[in-house]
Amino acid sequence: MGDMATDMAANMTTSTPALVVDIPTLDRNIAKMAGWAKDNAIALRPHVKTHKTVEIARRQVQAGATGITIATLGEAETFAEAGFRDLFVAYPLWAGADKASRLAALCERARLRVGVDSVEGAALLGRAVRRGKLEVLVEVDCGHHRSGVAPSEAAAVADAAAKAGLSVIGVFTFPGHSYAPGNAAQAARDEAEALERATSALELSGHAATVRSGGSTPSAYHSVGGLVTELRPGVYVFNDRQQVVLETCTADDVSLWALATVVSAPCDERFVVDSGSKVLAADRPDWLKGYGLLPELGGAGITQLTEHHAVVRGVSRGVLRLGDRVRVVPNHVCSAVNLADELVAIAGDGTLETWAVRARGKNS
Amino acid sequence: MGDMATDMAANMTTSTPALVVDIPTLDRNIAKMAGWAKDNAIALRPHVKTHKTVEIARRQVQAGATGITIATLGEAETFAEAGFRDLFVAYPLWAGADKASRLAALCERARLRVGVDSVEGAALLGRAVRRGKLEVLVEVDCGHHRSGVAPSEAAAVADAAAKAGLSVIGVFTFPGHSYAPGNAAQAARDEAEALERATSALELSGHAATVRSGGSTPSAYHSVGGLVTELRPGVYVFNDRQQVVLETCTADDVSLWALATVVSAPCDERFVVDSGSKVLAADRPDWLKGYGLLPELGGAGITQLTEHHAVVRGVSRGVLRLGDRVRVVPNHVCSAVNLADELVAIAGDGTLETWAVRARGKNS
Repeated sequence: MGDMATDMAANMTTSTPALVVDIPTLDRNIAKMAGWAKDNAIALRPHVKTHKTVEIARRQVQAGATGITIATLGEAETFAEAGFRDLFVAYPLWAGADKASRLAALCERARLRVGVDSVEGAALLGRAVRRGKLEVLVEVDCGHHRSGVAPSEAAAVADAAAKAGLSVIGVFTFPGHSYAPGNAAQAARDEAEALERATSALELSGHAATVRSGGSTPSAYHSVGGLVTELRPGVYVFNDRQQVVLETCTADDVSLWALATVVSAPCDERFVVDSGSKVLAADRPDWLKGYGLLPELGGAGITQLTEHHAVVRGVSRGVLRLGDRVRVVPNHVCSAVNLADELVAIAGDGTLETWAVRARGKNS
Repeated sequence: MGDMATDMAANMTTSTPALVVDIPTLDRNIAKMAGWAKDNAIALRPHVKTHKTVEIARRQVQAGATGITIATLGEAETFAEAGFRDLFVAYPLWAGADKASRLAALCERARLRVGVDSVEGAALLGRAVRRGKLEVLVEVDCGHHRSGVAPSEAAAVADAAAKAGLSVIGVFTFPGHSYAPGNAAQAARDEAEALERATSALELSGHAATVRSGGSTPSAYHSVGGLVTELRPGVYVFNDRQQVVLETCTADDVSLWALATVVSAPCDERFVVDSGSKVLAADRPDWLKGYGLLPELGGAGITQLTEHHAVVRGVSRGVLRLGDRVRVVPNHVCSAVNLADELVAIAGDGTLETWAVRARGKNS
């Protein structure tokens, strides 16, 4: 985000609040991660839950991504419909009666991989799809303590998957504990260790773990090539306030912001802009104060966020006036994009495009 | 939510995660607030930003609501299209070039009131619409410290509005500081005092403040009739975990929950259900720990919430199993509904209806 972006924000006639993407910065972010992955001989399979947007996923594939990662069956269906044919649902998909037939149909349309982290889940997946039609990766926990079994238990899950007629191709983990100041490098080491231990466990049980998949935006550039064969970062295409605070990027690397209008200035202490939590989302980890960054205002931030009001304090009256249009960088861009039906994308020459957030709302 | 709801949750074949509404509880909540308002001779103008759903707004009007409150011009357009003709945008609407013509068009289709809290905002509204076509209420701050001028400054805004050709009909405030344990009654007193002071200020300047509008769900039943002529609560139709913790209601009064599936149980310590922050929203005030309530599990809650994973701790293994379907009450229901395209509504006889969240995404 540079001076040109600032000027454009002020001059855009788009109705506020709206989410705006700066295409040159977006493309630079995409190229940087793709270049790093290539240089380190790691496959890049970006997580498209961040943007849910076909136009951006296409740019990632053109830049060298080997496939895409998605979070839900509904997202996978949306991207399959848009022509994507190599999909990894990096989630312990539970193929109950509500999803089994959709999963089977999707397997016939695309090369599909899904996550699995239980014997029971593996058995259900096996019953849902034709033998050999579905690839699975066993999810292991590397320190985030969410889903994923301990690496030592990965073999039992792989055994169950193979028995159920699924093709076991490897292991994956999400180093989500990279999302805290100073944790990124250690999280990447934890990731590599967990993937290595799980791989050994699988190989001892006769499975070939050719895919060892990890990655998050904060930890990606710390990934241990050789041990990790595939990365699945998502946020890096846009970046956000979390990434700036984590020092994964600078404010200049942020390619998406909310365009907002100052609608109220009731006293000298505060201004209200119209990008509330229904635009920015209310995500705020314990290590982060406030709800959004206003880059043009010396880093002033949002101190109070409700559904349609974002309160900015600490800005003197002459700097901000009623009716001014400002840019607001959300704390967590995935959640902000998930609230929008479309993104307004600005090309380098100032041309505007509208990109539908096509997989928004595909939560199941 | 009773035993019947528990049974239904387990037996529903709806794909998870999904938002489910129990219609009998919804109707009971609507009737209770309508009855209280009627008994206290206060007009009820519910805030439909909570549900954004035509079917629910119709039930509120049938139960006696005098009109509806909305937050954005886009929401107002959606409800006007659905036949609602008495709309109050309780927000300091900034009628810039992006909104002026839409505002003018809406004024011709419905009786429209909007909020105003600045001289500049009043002038812009006046330029956008035909003289006498738009009613305004001056917003005052009663302690939430968001938008709204101090009551003593309300007259200056009213003067500007009248000068701009707008019909000044009263004052409004949002007692949002009712959203903290033990604050509701005091917030209602603050509301009444601010509205009274602002009314006096307007009357001294020759304006008739016939509408004195306040209300939030926590403070509504503490409202001071006589001083307050109109209430705008929203959440009460569904209730949520915040309201249960604030003791505005009990868990039995909650009419909406996320239906979720246990998708991962990687160790004895934790279970993962599929209602992440893209379903529940990440809203969490400082006075509330965790991200959602599982009523069937002795009040166990979500301790860790990411986009597609909700981690439940403190439940023993026999109680919850992989594949179980559970109900999760979100912290803040307005934000959860804002993430869904539709609600699955269960009638008293078990019949299912699908209600579109028609105004979802109408943020501008």
